[in-house]
Amino acid sequence: MTEAEVSLFAADDLARAQALIRTCTSRGWRLATAESCTGGLVAALLTEVAGSSAVIDRGFVTYSNDAKVQLLGVSQEILDRHGAVSPETAREMARGAVARSRADCAVSITGIAGPGGGSDGKPVGLVHFGLALRGDGTIRHVERRFGSTGRGQVRLAAMRQALTMIEEGLAASPLQPVP
Amino acid sequence: MTEAEVSLFAADDLARAQALIRTCTSRGWRLATAESCTGGLVAALLTEVAGSSAVIDRGFVTYSNDAKVQLLGVSQEILDRHGAVSPETAREMARGAVARSRADCAVSITGIAGPGGGSDGKPVGLVHFGLALRGDGTIRHVERRFGSTGRGQVRLAAMRQALTMIEEGLAASPLQPVP
Repeated sequence: MTEAEVSLFAADDLARAQALIRTCTSRGWRLATAESCTGGLVAALLTEVAGSSAVIDRGFVTYSNDAKVQLLGVSQEILDRHGAVSPETAREMARGAVARSRADCAVSITGIAGPGGGSDGKPVGLVHFGLALRGDGTIRHVERRFGSTGRGQVRLAAMRQALTMIEEGLAASPLQPVP
Repeated sequence: MTEAEVSLFAADDLARAQALIRTCTSRGWRLATAESCTGGLVAALLTEVAGSSAVIDRGFVTYSNDAKVQLLGVSQEILDRHGAVSPETAREMARGAVARSRADCAVSITGIAGPGGGSDGKPVGLVHFGLALRGDGTIRHVERRFGSTGRGQVRLAAMRQALTMIEEGLAASPLQPVP
């Protein structure tokens, strides 16, 4: 992509996405996303990169709880017990996205973008992230609290954290994944 | 959303998304998206609207052909015969998105964002759209040729056409859908 081209996304974000796509392409890795509060932003950024079709297998925008259960196999019990915005749900979303795709690596995002929906225990800006790698039973989890900075800002911050998760996953697993 | 808030999306696009979410909320309609070349942009725009969780059920980012088959039930025969960028695939994607969600209305987008991937019959910028309404067997189809205007620009133009499709679907079906 040349600088003259139009994109919704900031140059820094595009540069990170391009680097991720390049690394995945060279390794033969495929990626999937499981997005709730970001609603497709991460998939949209990654697919803004020319040549990303060699890497991006699919994205699940699981906005409703039904979608989390039906598309990703998150258990209703986990949703009932811990809520959609929880470490447990984030982990299950990432696990499900690898299990239900051809991806080697999947990132999940579930949080409260606001302005409504916050509570004392789960304030606006709270976002949980999961990262699953195929062939590795460990699901990484990160919690971030971006604060009540506005819906668009929380979603952008979450999109950037998702990139960080994938970058870290690639750095931690330098070898080809085991099929 | 106040004007002071940060958003990736242009004010005009947000205003259209807000109007759609408002109309769907008042009707009790839910929406789903089935995106290939836009890669999640339409879902990301719609979910940028506060309160969209009452309307947006889920989004399918079916970037690979495998994803189109597995998530949306597009037949391999249609993909083999007509290709992923075809009226037939766009229709099947929209049909599948309604069938495999709780949505009353689903829009699909499949095209060639470029810069590569074009051919004489299917140039860069060609995008097919589908719109399915629950309880209505007719799947609407629109073909647009946005030209070789750059990947980001083609995707934005396609996102806007998808909004138009949903707007037209709402206008054509003023009544509550039959469950």
